[in-house]
Amino acid sequence: MHLSEITHPNQLHGLSIRQLQQIARQIRDKHLQTVAATGGHLGPGLGVVELTLGLYQTLDLDRDKVIWDVGHQAYPHKLITGRYSNFHTLRQKDGVAGYLKRCENKFDHFGAGHASTSISAALGMALARDLKGEKFKSVAVIGDGALTGGMALEAINHAGHLPKTNLLVVLNDNEMSISPNVGAIPRYLNKMRLSPPVQFLSDGIEEQLKHIPFVGESISPELERIKEGMKRLAVPKVGAVFEELGFTYMGPMDGHNLEELIATFQQAHKITGPVLVHVVTTKGKGYELAEKDQVGYHAQNPFNLATGKAIPSSKPKPPAYAKVFSHTLVKLAEQNPKIVGITAAMATGTGLDKLQAKLPNQYIDVGIAEQHAVTLAAGLAAEGMRPVAAIYSTFLQRAYDQIIHDVCIQNLPVFFCLDRSGIVGADGPTHQGMYDIAYMRCIPNMVVMAPKDEAELQRMVVTGINHTTSPISMRFPRGNGHGVPLMEEGWEPLEIGKGEILRQGDDVLILGYGTMVYPSMQAAEILSEHGIEATVINARFVKPLDTELIVPLAKQIGRVVSLEEGCLMGGFGSAVAEALMDANVLVPVKRIGVPDILVDHATPDESFAVLGLSSRQIVETVLQAFFKKELAVVK
Amino acid sequence: MHLSEITHPNQLHGLSIRQLQQIARQIRDKHLQTVAATGGHLGPGLGVVELTLGLYQTLDLDRDKVIWDVGHQAYPHKLITGRYSNFHTLRQKDGVAGYLKRCENKFDHFGAGHASTSISAALGMALARDLKGEKFKSVAVIGDGALTGGMALEAINHAGHLPKTNLLVVLNDNEMSISPNVGAIPRYLNKMRLSPPVQFLSDGIEEQLKHIPFVGESISPELERIKEGMKRLAVPKVGAVFEELGFTYMGPMDGHNLEELIATFQQAHKITGPVLVHVVTTKGKGYELAEKDQVGYHAQNPFNLATGKAIPSSKPKPPAYAKVFSHTLVKLAEQNPKIVGITAAMATGTGLDKLQAKLPNQYIDVGIAEQHAVTLAAGLAAEGMRPVAAIYSTFLQRAYDQIIHDVCIQNLPVFFCLDRSGIVGADGPTHQGMYDIAYMRCIPNMVVMAPKDEAELQRMVVTGINHTTSPISMRFPRGNGHGVPLMEEGWEPLEIGKGEILRQGDDVLILGYGTMVYPSMQAAEILSEHGIEATVINARFVKPLDTELIVPLAKQIGRVVSLEEGCLMGGFGSAVAEALMDANVLVPVKRIGVPDILVDHATPDESFAVLGLSSRQIVETVLQAFFKKELAVVK
Repeated sequence: MHLSEITHPNQLHGLSIRQLQQIARQIRDKHLQTVAATGGHLGPGLGVVELTLGLYQTLDLDRDKVIWDVGHQAYPHKLITGRYSNFHTLRQKDGVAGYLKRCENKFDHFGAGHASTSISAALGMALARDLKGEKFKSVAVIGDGALTGGMALEAINHAGHLPKTNLLVVLNDNEMSISPNVGAIPRYLNKMRLSPPVQFLSDGIEEQLKHIPFVGESISPELERIKEGMKRLAVPKVGAVFEELGFTYMGPMDGHNLEELIATFQQAHKITGPVLVHVVTTKGKGYELAEKDQVGYHAQNPFNLATGKAIPSSKPKPPAYAKVFSHTLVKLAEQNPKIVGITAAMATGTGLDKLQAKLPNQYIDVGIAEQHAVTLAAGLAAEGMRPVAAIYSTFLQRAYDQIIHDVCIQNLPVFFCLDRSGIVGADGPTHQGMYDIAYMRCIPNMVVMAPKDEAELQRMVVTGINHTTSPISMRFPRGNGHGVPLMEEGWEPLEIGKGEILRQGDDVLILGYGTMVYPSMQAAEILSEHGIEATVINARFVKPLDTELIVPLAKQIGRVVSLEEGCLMGGFGSAVAEALMDANVLVPVKRIGVPDILVDHATPDESFAVLGLSSRQIVETVLQAFFKKELAVVK
Repeated sequence: MHLSEITHPNQLHGLSIRQLQQIARQIRDKHLQTVAATGGHLGPGLGVVELTLGLYQTLDLDRDKVIWDVGHQAYPHKLITGRYSNFHTLRQKDGVAGYLKRCENKFDHFGAGHASTSISAALGMALARDLKGEKFKSVAVIGDGALTGGMALEAINHAGHLPKTNLLVVLNDNEMSISPNVGAIPRYLNKMRLSPPVQFLSDGIEEQLKHIPFVGESISPELERIKEGMKRLAVPKVGAVFEELGFTYMGPMDGHNLEELIATFQQAHKITGPVLVHVVTTKGKGYELAEKDQVGYHAQNPFNLATGKAIPSSKPKPPAYAKVFSHTLVKLAEQNPKIVGITAAMATGTGLDKLQAKLPNQYIDVGIAEQHAVTLAAGLAAEGMRPVAAIYSTFLQRAYDQIIHDVCIQNLPVFFCLDRSGIVGADGPTHQGMYDIAYMRCIPNMVVMAPKDEAELQRMVVTGINHTTSPISMRFPRGNGHGVPLMEEGWEPLEIGKGEILRQGDDVLILGYGTMVYPSMQAAEILSEHGIEATVINARFVKPLDTELIVPLAKQIGRVVSLEEGCLMGGFGSAVAEALMDANVLVPVKRIGVPDILVDHATPDESFAVLGLSSRQIVETVLQAFFKKELAVVK
């Protein structure tokens, strides 16, 4: 059987180990070829090919449910659940998603782009099953990195307390988050990883017993029996933490040995209550380059399969925002030992790996643990340090209460740097940074700002570091800057709450925030070609909003457009509307941004077009809203 | 020395055990008398009197920092840090706060009203200390309930990985959250609690060894030495989980034995790296009634110290919203086995204890674990159940990403019931339910509603249960209803997104949301006395907002007032402003609600007055905003 013939995972049933190994090879080939062409996650999927096949051979997938933590490890799952034929559309608009989606496939029982959710979801399904009197297996597959996330531990605490609720947790232990793991739990797993599996421990203990006086040399039957007793005492040591927390622990298993995996899963299914099977896998397995550079090949842009090198883009691009951010932060941190950069397992994505390399003492990676990251930052701020919490917009949602309760209520000067704010492109709905303007600006004490380009980002980093009287946050997008000259010195902080006028005109007031300032200017230029002159403001701050600048201009010009790359509900435009209402300036406001929908995966440009955020679409919207008579003339 | 003479905790230095015991008695007396008079948290503080005194005698509080998890256990701390003399003002406006506050006292190094934050904060301070080259002890005191919260476990994972960072975690193990604890971690602690402390285990092990063949009877010196070796093998079992996670474990200690506590803390201070001292305490210690009913005496309204009975209020009150909620939910759950109520360790507060009593299978307490609670609910919903996540507004902030990522992106029909929305009174800023309207309405797919009174709450519970096409949420306040007749049957769901007209008038349109509907009506009546006739709308839904009803009336009447018990930034009034702007209906809107400030502890009525939310203040605001000429006439 060839992989292309498999459209239902139950077709794996009855295949021999040899046949499964062939399928595994085909999965790896398809996986590699596709990601080399389209870009996407590489290492995670390659590592779980045998885990997927071995697990699925022991399940009836018409009934049983597997919940994959962070769908990026589920490409092999996708390839055997009916998505082989269109897998080449991976992460492209209207194509196969890079993560799991309930609406994409019936075998995607629970979607996930963020880590640490699978045990909670699988336990919820298991409890529902038991309440409904149904019979099926509920399985969570979770990485060792994701296991450091608090909610996974909350779920283990709960599941371990339910001895009658059957639940299988497969721990995919590849020793990595995106970067090497941080923390005592991964270290503990590593210790176990080096141990023989539990079932063989009774042999291994002989070795340990040698260190006890006389036992090593003992030969009498009486002492043999003592040894047996001691083994029983000592055996629980491997996996003891999980056993103490109510799980039956099995492992560590070789995650690339199908025979061992299948036997273990079959055994696990017979056990009542929560079971944890500890599977040791190699991230990037089967592609040598990825095995050797597990950080570099976690996810890739299109690359040459033979050399592993990224296919160069047609023209050189300006530096990425993240790169400018980290460059600037490192420069400032070199001068100010109080600056501490904090990441939650995203050292490379946030660019904080540069800080780690230069100033390791001023760098903290807390693991996949955004809640802890933010309150740790609050603790540092309380001691007079300048903590910079560099967390993607979408992941900062994980620490919302910590922002409110630990930072803002205490008015501690933590500097939040929200990378990947706005449209994120191929990662899709779970990763879109849509809500941060709304969810940040409603919290007292928080300053909320966004730069128009990478040079202004530099000034805002300076501003954030300099601002010690309250918490402050800066959002910036995924992707590349505008190629404007960077400032290498003489950085001046911005005045908090002050916008700038970029262009003057009497017909319409365009208020751009962050990434929408350049499109605002472009739209103004096009409007000008049609005889409509716009004043364009770079708002810089949504909180405090520069009402002194905006309100009189709005009153004078009489037509206002707000532009933001974020949700319209409660966002920047909403703040503008509030300000005008509060000032009793009753002029029409056209709010342009992301409507109340989920934005699917696509290229950023495609998403912009879908959302009506391109300069030309903005012009059309403005013309329709305010210049109905002129519209015909223009066309 | 008398407690009243202690204004600095270092005054404890040099006191004998006997003297400390006297101080302990005085603390308990003052604590009991005060809480009996003012209301407040009773059991938590009484349980940690010796822990506080013992710990503080081993610290130099001019340098060392103690971070108390959830300030409600810190009343003894308050009484020896200069707040004895005004302790009678506890939880009253401008008086001593019920939780810790950095701005209240220099010994309150980190405030907390929510659980599980202390280790993160203390670790942040410890890291800052080491970076600055300072020397002080950083100590977190955390309850066993709080230890089930994911962020505490994230912090342990991080701290356990830092063998050179001195950090003392004192585990105040009283076997309780507010209710008895849930989960495998508390069960594990309980197992340890029943064990003798580590240092004495080598004696206790004799008992265990008896169960191993022959060892029990052995007398030969050879076997004696074997026993010694076995002890070494077995000893790490107590506290093994913490030891495996990198902590030095000490305990379990008797939390009311000052001598033992002081000796242990002194020993702990000598150890490098993270140390966990496991202290077993009795919640409510020293007040027999509280020791016997630890749930009932967790926190109290004013009560008679001799009888323990609540001092009856002067007049009978209508039922509390929470009571009506739980009553209604139980009724519906009896008819619909798919309904499952979920609480995160707030069984009594949410009223879900009634569900537990009646339908234990349809009740889940996950422990202090809001993130897990929400994704568990999503898992249940994915399986066709009707999960009802009953979580206070302020605590739901903990699960914000789970609401977005696991519930709304997947459009799973979880019903969120947000008790304690709006002003909460004496609990103060950490507990105010101010942000939920803003943070919920910006998420796609979410329905957001609030009832005007307890009868409408019943209909909204029905509405939420009946609504299976998307997530839905309902906010309702702390405190008592309006005394309107409850519906015992024939409950009809409301139409989603439809408001109701309560009163008609041509001069001003008043839009009330949730708790502000009654004040809206009262304000309309007062306005009417002054010749101003208002149309009053009960909005019911902020999302979807009933624009069909609101927009034409706003256009027609020309003056709009919005009223909400929540933050103005991004809230209900903001939604109204957006709707009018989008419809190009340019009429003045006066948004009344909670401005961008933190609301301090006080009675709800006092807070309402401070915020200008009383009916009379609303009238004044409306008159000033829209009827300037009439204002003089009225006065």
